[in-house]
Amino acid sequence: MSSHSSPFLDRLQLYQKRVDRAMDQWLPSANTHPARLHEAMRYAVLTGGKRIRPTLTYATGEALGIPLSELDGIAASLELIHSYSLVHDDLPAMDDDDLRRGQPTCHKAFDEATAILVGDALQALSFYILTHDKNLKASPEIRLRMIELLGLACGSRGMAGGQAIDLESVGKELNIMQLEDMHIHKTGALIRASVALPALCVSDKDQSLFDRLDHFGKCIGLAFQIRDDILDEEGDTSTMGKQQGQDRARNKPTYPYIAGMSVAKERAADLYQESLKSLEAFDDKADTLRNIADYIVNRSH
Amino acid sequence: MSSHSSPFLDRLQLYQKRVDRAMDQWLPSANTHPARLHEAMRYAVLTGGKRIRPTLTYATGEALGIPLSELDGIAASLELIHSYSLVHDDLPAMDDDDLRRGQPTCHKAFDEATAILVGDALQALSFYILTHDKNLKASPEIRLRMIELLGLACGSRGMAGGQAIDLESVGKELNIMQLEDMHIHKTGALIRASVALPALCVSDKDQSLFDRLDHFGKCIGLAFQIRDDILDEEGDTSTMGKQQGQDRARNKPTYPYIAGMSVAKERAADLYQESLKSLEAFDDKADTLRNIADYIVNRSH
Repeated sequence: MSSHSSPFLDRLQLYQKRVDRAMDQWLPSANTHPARLHEAMRYAVLTGGKRIRPTLTYATGEALGIPLSELDGIAASLELIHSYSLVHDDLPAMDDDDLRRGQPTCHKAFDEATAILVGDALQALSFYILTHDKNLKASPEIRLRMIELLGLACGSRGMAGGQAIDLESVGKELNIMQLEDMHIHKTGALIRASVALPALCVSDKDQSLFDRLDHFGKCIGLAFQIRDDILDEEGDTSTMGKQQGQDRARNKPTYPYIAGMSVAKERAADLYQESLKSLEAFDDKADTLRNIADYIVNRSH
Repeated sequence: MSSHSSPFLDRLQLYQKRVDRAMDQWLPSANTHPARLHEAMRYAVLTGGKRIRPTLTYATGEALGIPLSELDGIAASLELIHSYSLVHDDLPAMDDDDLRRGQPTCHKAFDEATAILVGDALQALSFYILTHDKNLKASPEIRLRMIELLGLACGSRGMAGGQAIDLESVGKELNIMQLEDMHIHKTGALIRASVALPALCVSDKDQSLFDRLDHFGKCIGLAFQIRDDILDEEGDTSTMGKQQGQDRARNKPTYPYIAGMSVAKERAADLYQESLKSLEAFDDKADTLRNIADYIVNRSH
């Protein structure tokens, strides 16, 4: 794919390094009391991952001319929320996964109780960072809007709600609308927030700029999960770092299963086009954001 | 006890009603999508409890002349954090409790996965409220400090950390210092925050006023847990709503077990005196706060 040229991949890698360094700095060291909990938090967060949410945050900032150094806190905050959700989703009472990113899941490497607390503490840290990050130049009002938006995105009407819908849907016949509703909550809300939080930095100057970016995030959030479903059917276990066909094997509804593979691919392509359209008024500073959209819709893992 | 006269109990009941109504309003209704999750959140929160943290919040506000209506959001936020921690602590992987406040625990009434998500979503809601509460007159800067403090109080170096220390301590010989450290994290941090958050409302005008109230909260937070330990040995199952002797039966260290019953009672009494001392400069508007301190140290359940 043209967008997967080297400058773009270098850019992604730069973003990934930035957010990894930021999270490393925000997470208490592994010998800070209580040490085992902090060790487990670091294990859950710092063992790789695509860092899709932070890359969206940085690229949105780039499109708006916000220095990357101002965005490290927001990027870290979002990725910590994502990491906590993975730790809890992997628990035996939830998806019961032994592997995550090719490594033992947190409750396997440590224990279930620790994994529950890891998630709880990561969520608290995530909100704390948004209050405390000195590099972020946003006004207190804007910071509060960020926290408000993050609270909604990861709460019962966002990510946690999406996981509840997911659990309820096992073995049930969903229609496309219900499946999209699940995806919009479970994955979409936090991805959307990854664009919206940095976009809030300019919302007091230009609300329509915020709205367009927010719409971009909404489209790409849903496209991401549809692509995930497609990969669950078509993907290769070794490149994905998790079991191919896992969702279907668990009797979880996926987009290709409900709508058919060609409809699923068409929907992802449409959302991609719609996401690009909402960036029309932006200049080439938004190219990384456009490339990430391409990457999200066409990735092979 | 003199403090348990009727006007004080009426006051407590008023506080409890206020925070229950506030939480009822902040929690999505039980038929809001996803309905089962919201039903479970309401079940976990609205089935009673002493509401100690909110009563401290209201009484602190009273001591400072802050109208109670301004404090409903803070009180709700703190109690939601406390409720989430109970839901997670009760899980099979943690304390494995079937009863809470005389009712089936959340994972018994619903299921484990739902209980995990209930806790996660309650935490998010708690932070959201502090950004969104229109009745709170605090400046955005002060609100941010509240969120920051709450993040610390319930995170890995606060409440969640305390639960991790608790789990690690099962079957181990702790000394008094280590036990106090556990208590200060597990219960103390959030109780302290229940005083500190409303006290932040005046911190920009008088830092020493804040410091004295914060010290009060610190003393009373530790005293609360020592009293809990004493009740675990001496209490009566029917008045406590949970099993007497439960902590010891689980091989969990308690204050009376480690230090002896008389030392435990002496320590609680000393902390009570110290807490009163930090309120010396306050007039009789702080009497409810003084009475709560008395209640915490002398309660029978």
